[in-house]
Amino acid sequence: MNADALILQDAAAMAEAVRSGAVSAVALTQASLDRIGATDGRINAFTDVVRERALRRAAQVDASLASPNAARTRELPLLGVPFAVKNLFDIAGLQTLAGSKIERDSAPARGDALLVRRLESAGAVLVGALNMDEYAYGFTTENSHVGPAHNPHDLTRIAGGSSGGSGAAVAAGQVALTLGSDTNGSIRVPASLCGIFGLKPTFGRLPRTGSYPFISSLDHLGPFARSVRDLALTYDAMQGPETHAPRDPGCAQRTAEPVSAQLSHGTRGLRIGVLGGYFRERALPEALSAVDRVAEALGAHQMVELPMVEAGRAAAFLITNAEGAALHLHDLRQRPQDFEPLSRDRFLAGALIPAAWVARAQRVRRLYAEQVARLFERFDILLAPSTPCAATPIGAEWFELNGQRLPVRPNMGVLTQPISCIGLPVCAVPVWGAHASLPIGVQVLAAPWREDLALRVAAALEAAGVAQAPVAAL
Amino acid sequence: MNADALILQDAAAMAEAVRSGAVSAVALTQASLDRIGATDGRINAFTDVVRERALRRAAQVDASLASPNAARTRELPLLGVPFAVKNLFDIAGLQTLAGSKIERDSAPARGDALLVRRLESAGAVLVGALNMDEYAYGFTTENSHVGPAHNPHDLTRIAGGSSGGSGAAVAAGQVALTLGSDTNGSIRVPASLCGIFGLKPTFGRLPRTGSYPFISSLDHLGPFARSVRDLALTYDAMQGPETHAPRDPGCAQRTAEPVSAQLSHGTRGLRIGVLGGYFRERALPEALSAVDRVAEALGAHQMVELPMVEAGRAAAFLITNAEGAALHLHDLRQRPQDFEPLSRDRFLAGALIPAAWVARAQRVRRLYAEQVARLFERFDILLAPSTPCAATPIGAEWFELNGQRLPVRPNMGVLTQPISCIGLPVCAVPVWGAHASLPIGVQVLAAPWREDLALRVAAALEAAGVAQAPVAAL
Repeated sequence: MNADALILQDAAAMAEAVRSGAVSAVALTQASLDRIGATDGRINAFTDVVRERALRRAAQVDASLASPNAARTRELPLLGVPFAVKNLFDIAGLQTLAGSKIERDSAPARGDALLVRRLESAGAVLVGALNMDEYAYGFTTENSHVGPAHNPHDLTRIAGGSSGGSGAAVAAGQVALTLGSDTNGSIRVPASLCGIFGLKPTFGRLPRTGSYPFISSLDHLGPFARSVRDLALTYDAMQGPETHAPRDPGCAQRTAEPVSAQLSHGTRGLRIGVLGGYFRERALPEALSAVDRVAEALGAHQMVELPMVEAGRAAAFLITNAEGAALHLHDLRQRPQDFEPLSRDRFLAGALIPAAWVARAQRVRRLYAEQVARLFERFDILLAPSTPCAATPIGAEWFELNGQRLPVRPNMGVLTQPISCIGLPVCAVPVWGAHASLPIGVQVLAAPWREDLALRVAAALEAAGVAQAPVAAL
Repeated sequence: MNADALILQDAAAMAEAVRSGAVSAVALTQASLDRIGATDGRINAFTDVVRERALRRAAQVDASLASPNAARTRELPLLGVPFAVKNLFDIAGLQTLAGSKIERDSAPARGDALLVRRLESAGAVLVGALNMDEYAYGFTTENSHVGPAHNPHDLTRIAGGSSGGSGAAVAAGQVALTLGSDTNGSIRVPASLCGIFGLKPTFGRLPRTGSYPFISSLDHLGPFARSVRDLALTYDAMQGPETHAPRDPGCAQRTAEPVSAQLSHGTRGLRIGVLGGYFRERALPEALSAVDRVAEALGAHQMVELPMVEAGRAAAFLITNAEGAALHLHDLRQRPQDFEPLSRDRFLAGALIPAAWVARAQRVRRLYAEQVARLFERFDILLAPSTPCAATPIGAEWFELNGQRLPVRPNMGVLTQPISCIGLPVCAVPVWGAHASLPIGVQVLAAPWREDLALRVAAALEAAGVAQAPVAAL
């Protein structure tokens, strides 16, 4: 089989081709590296490509398939599948830049992040590290140090952020799988703007050991893909607590049933609501139309409001600004000029927030979480747009929403931030046709620990053709 | 038996007398009420005496002893024992003042605090609420709204705080048992200055439902008594998570083995260290002499330093000031004049602390806890003074420590604050003879969840006559 064609399919198809011997892991990895080489000058998704490591690892996979271990190797779910990670995941021998200039002074990582190790244990092949907003603080991946990530569907537009490289690489067909992080929306926003699937699991589901933190009580890690089965396979391969000397105090000691086998269970019997109020007032018609298509396909007609949502978002904002500044306080004092100019002022402002405000924000957040928990006694799934609009032009500072002029960079996450700050799992699904030419995402959210339900609904939407993630024509 | 004599013995002796029929619960309660009436004009330990409720409850106990339930009633460990609680515990029908003037505008509590209910279920009889520093912010119980609690052993001196009423009532023989709270030392400091036993359990051991909070990540509740067996009986009756609709998110879901039956197990084999460095530099000779007597009695000769202790205390200080201010922010803005003048400025300063400092303080605290945890691989018990000195005169603002002039009110907790901020269980034991005329306490501290060891060591010290808690001559 032609590896260059295969690289544009999904990870499950690639693994199957490697498994059957139709293609080698080395050929697939080379095809990924070639596609990166051919397209990344326009996309700027990658900050590092680990060519040698990738080809060496792929050769190991191929060798293992010709060894006495072949039968066990063939069982690996992501056999020979190239993938890449946001550059806040440790990669042995590389500096973990987290999008910054400052971390260029840091020592190279001594090992790989835990999730990188888990994916490689599942047969996948790491090919590189991806562009992001500095220190994950932003929703646009307009990184002044290395240049913006470009949206593969319209190169003049943003890919979203902060995991913009992770979104763009998948939409551009450079790799089928990437990992990102989501503190206030940084997986769901680029998934929305790049027209791909993204999963932000429940807070505490995936261990964050070996990744650069932003806000430890809000940081989630998760995958991007062009099919729901890829999301599920990747999630199954990554989930579960760290059993040996756990280093992530926020990771819960619980393991989920694999969900990849449950995707075809359908949506019958699920009580699905559509988030109204806040989530409709802060969305342009294109975003509302995307949600309405999804709701229609699922037969979901009940509108419901999230109690305390505005207070919850304000709390998330305060906590983020203050804790983010706390993490970088030393550098903010010593070398403010080296910070990303697009977020430096927000960092500095965060350093001035009184602790009393944050303590109250944490109380509001707890109360909000309790109230939303009660809502899940009546609903299994809730729907909302992922972003207020489709991708905006690179460099745009403002967008208009119901007559109000809002700054793009903090507000692209206005619909994601109130969900992540209470840790709910969300599968973001890409909808086409709601906007004239661009995709826009819809959040399928579930009660804590019910990623299975969100993924089942996403799979049903994909099967019905309502959600799809085509590779961009480049 | 003479109830007036019995009331000066310990709770276990009182319960045994009620159990055997030698005295009635009503007689015992009346004796307690009489003693309060005769002495509290000088002590000012009580803010409320619930005479009617107490006599009604005592009559129920007596009736139950004459009913078909008598056999079961006789098994209750605190049968007919009068007790009282710091006025931050809810008492049905009373306002929970927490030492403040502001809460005089609050609604009366609709029910009793959970620990009050647990003690009454164990047969005890609540007789009233006790004086404290406003909102638990202080170490002296010089409450400007209701006057200071006086030390029963020297009425011109402080009882310590913030649970000063709880300490004074037990030392004065008004009741054998009281409850207090300890955020940075508020049980151990009055236990030290009043010459009685106090237990600050592991953080998360006792549910705080129905008590007025100070700093939720630091607040502990616990008992005071004149014998170790009383502490153990009370602790056994109170410990364990709230099983029905738990309201205290900081309470761990774990239950301890009863310790009252283990007190005679002795100290053989226990690895006991004496805290040096910080804990000796901040103590007057009387405090060092008290620790040395205890160490000598236990054959403990190894001196050990707590790693990071200064940073840990600084972290506790910042967290306390900032979160305390956060809790009262509205009132600090609206009616600062109604706050305790002795702590108002500290509250106001706390409202100005940047969140970034507190975030870093929390990180320091975690690191400090990890380092101390490693120390408990080598030691079972550590010893330190409870206070830098014996009780100071009421109104004294300063004391001298190694040539340094220090403010009394925040510094009486200099030796307790670094222990509670990492949640270690401590039994404070009273030592006489180290100071010319006053008692001074020693902290017997153990690894988290090992209250049993701390209580066993305290019992051994009591049995050896090294620690004792006589009723004050009044």
